[in-house]
Amino acid sequence: MSLADDMKDMGRRARAAAATLRQTNAATRSAAIAAMARQVRARVPAILGANAADVAGASGMIDRLRLDPGRVEALADALDQVAALPDPLGRETARWQRPNGLDIARVATPIGVIGMIFESRPNVATDAAAICIRSGNAVILRSGSDALATCLALHEAIAAGLAEAGLDAACVQIVPTPDRAAVGHMLGGLDGAIDLIIPRGGKALVERVAREARVAVLGHLEGICHTYLHQSADPAMARAIVVNAKLRRTSVCGATECLLIDRAAAPVLLPPIAAALREGGCALRGDPESRALADGIAAADDSDWGREYLAPVLAVKIVDGLDAAIGFIAAHGSGHTDAIVADDDAAAERFLAEVDSAIVVRNASTQFADGGEFGFGAEIGIATGRLAPRGPVGPEQLTSYKYVVRGAGQTRP
Amino acid sequence: MSLADDMKDMGRRARAAAATLRQTNAATRSAAIAAMARQVRARVPAILGANAADVAGASGMIDRLRLDPGRVEALADALDQVAALPDPLGRETARWQRPNGLDIARVATPIGVIGMIFESRPNVATDAAAICIRSGNAVILRSGSDALATCLALHEAIAAGLAEAGLDAACVQIVPTPDRAAVGHMLGGLDGAIDLIIPRGGKALVERVAREARVAVLGHLEGICHTYLHQSADPAMARAIVVNAKLRRTSVCGATECLLIDRAAAPVLLPPIAAALREGGCALRGDPESRALADGIAAADDSDWGREYLAPVLAVKIVDGLDAAIGFIAAHGSGHTDAIVADDDAAAERFLAEVDSAIVVRNASTQFADGGEFGFGAEIGIATGRLAPRGPVGPEQLTSYKYVVRGAGQTRP
Repeated sequence: MSLADDMKDMGRRARAAAATLRQTNAATRSAAIAAMARQVRARVPAILGANAADVAGASGMIDRLRLDPGRVEALADALDQVAALPDPLGRETARWQRPNGLDIARVATPIGVIGMIFESRPNVATDAAAICIRSGNAVILRSGSDALATCLALHEAIAAGLAEAGLDAACVQIVPTPDRAAVGHMLGGLDGAIDLIIPRGGKALVERVAREARVAVLGHLEGICHTYLHQSADPAMARAIVVNAKLRRTSVCGATECLLIDRAAAPVLLPPIAAALREGGCALRGDPESRALADGIAAADDSDWGREYLAPVLAVKIVDGLDAAIGFIAAHGSGHTDAIVADDDAAAERFLAEVDSAIVVRNASTQFADGGEFGFGAEIGIATGRLAPRGPVGPEQLTSYKYVVRGAGQTRP
Repeated sequence: MSLADDMKDMGRRARAAAATLRQTNAATRSAAIAAMARQVRARVPAILGANAADVAGASGMIDRLRLDPGRVEALADALDQVAALPDPLGRETARWQRPNGLDIARVATPIGVIGMIFESRPNVATDAAAICIRSGNAVILRSGSDALATCLALHEAIAAGLAEAGLDAACVQIVPTPDRAAVGHMLGGLDGAIDLIIPRGGKALVERVAREARVAVLGHLEGICHTYLHQSADPAMARAIVVNAKLRRTSVCGATECLLIDRAAAPVLLPPIAAALREGGCALRGDPESRALADGIAAADDSDWGREYLAPVLAVKIVDGLDAAIGFIAAHGSGHTDAIVADDDAAAERFLAEVDSAIVVRNASTQFADGGEFGFGAEIGIATGRLAPRGPVGPEQLTSYKYVVRGAGQTRP
């Protein structure tokens, strides 16, 4: 069979598996995920052996790709955590009666079939399998070629876990070939078999997915996060938040990339923050006003506004108050996560109401943009589109709903 | 300027208007919609004059297109009803605290810019304007050429209503040309300006939208609704529900197109229902078993299963119990609305749980598939995709959400 035929066959099997998966109960889904964890722990040598082969042939991203016994245990532990999460299916998210006596309930249902396209992080394979099974969705995994051997070894553990719980093996399938054409077939939807594509990887991948996908896509292209210091900001709080938002981890999508400071308070706020950031190894690129207020700030150019560094680099701009900050974020942000530091309640609430990002934050670090930190237990991605699901996406967010109407013989006039 | 440039300019103005609209309060949005109603009533002669010109030049669909004073008043009354609806924006749909003290709220927000593509029903213009303004979304209306003059006259009333309330005229724009290329530009998203396309019209339009759209689409291709009579169904209730579900209105998407009857009860249930349907002028097309049980049932062929007649025609099939009915609906339904008539609670609940349609119904007519009947006050469409919004879509369903995180200086460990 051709690759196209093979892929369509995967789609058909995934659709059929999804139909059976939605009928399973929460205990069965939990048992399958817990069994995956046991199967991963039972296969550590095989997984590390496959990973060593991947690392030997890898072109880059070695750190993201490489596994060791500790990292494999972390994968298994993440599976155990998802196995213990409350099941999102069947929840009544609304229920009401109509004057004619009809009882209408909105009930959480699985979406159906997820297409997970990722690059070199093997943990995405196990995380996605767990979150999809938890939420009753079948998933087709497509790993980057660098991580394919590792992900195939992990998939053997996933498949064994599904079998232990009596679930259809097609609930979690993996594309067995590195052929890049497979991604194109998935983006085409496999004859309507795929309901939602979730890309996890670099900008090039996400841009290709956004450009070519013929089905819904969940994800974010960039995390261009801003932290805005209002003139009412407490200086010590502002310093601690900015240093954490930028430097805790610079490679995550919730890292602050641009610091905005009210002109009125900049002479007080900026110098100690600039010093703390430089101590932390962060390069600063500022506008002329900010450079006049603190040492060691290089000159920013227009390419620094709205730029995702994913590195210890921070753009700094002085703004003329709340409206200017909101306008700057609207012009240069990516709708991911933006924060204000302010003691002034009215100013803070206006920022939270008017900034149209998936996550808006007052007096905390933008690096809290994470499903785990939100209490979702696990996260398959963060969505910055305007349609739901938006923001961190865990098992509960990876569901849809249907309306259940219970009557006593009502006919419509 | 070329049409492409004109359309992109509409998109830019819509995006800018959406940014201001999301900051308005509920009273302003209500005032704008109520003012639209007054402006429609003040323009009845102009609207009817434009409509007479449309009707004179129309190629078909005259009944859907034609307005009279009563129908114009109905449009205005629908606007008044939406003006009186509760505002969906700013609602906290969830709020919780994290152990670190972070307060997280999920708050309803507008989606942004809606592209409304419809054919010859002028009421879609005013209904869509009202529902979009109620939910804080800007909208670009694209009317079929048959109804363009009428919709331009209605848009003058809409624009005057927006102006009365001090809202940006670009909150509701209409494509002023019948050029079909305009639809293609909208389906391309107008450089990212359009967040969601809602098609309202015939199958050809909806198929084109589904095929060409580069942005999210909300709607349904077909309403292939089934009513299944379980062997425990009360005969009188079953007869009343089936007659209503098929014949109340045969042109609506919630009309039942196929009747499934348990073999065990078919000899009792089918004859009186077939007689009542024939009395009501409904043609029946059945499988051999059903034809042997009642008079006047023509022979169905395979093309009758999964067929949307939108006419006084009903397909009839005898099935071997609940699982066969669920399987038949999975194979031939369109995921819109499917009903069971049953006194047996266990059978009914299994049907409601296992049929994966946007709306599942027990002991009531499938023709309740309607936003007004659900209590949504108004409806811009019914969605059969698996991703939310699903089912009837009113102002509340036409919103997205964002997460508002309130802290006290928290940084992430």
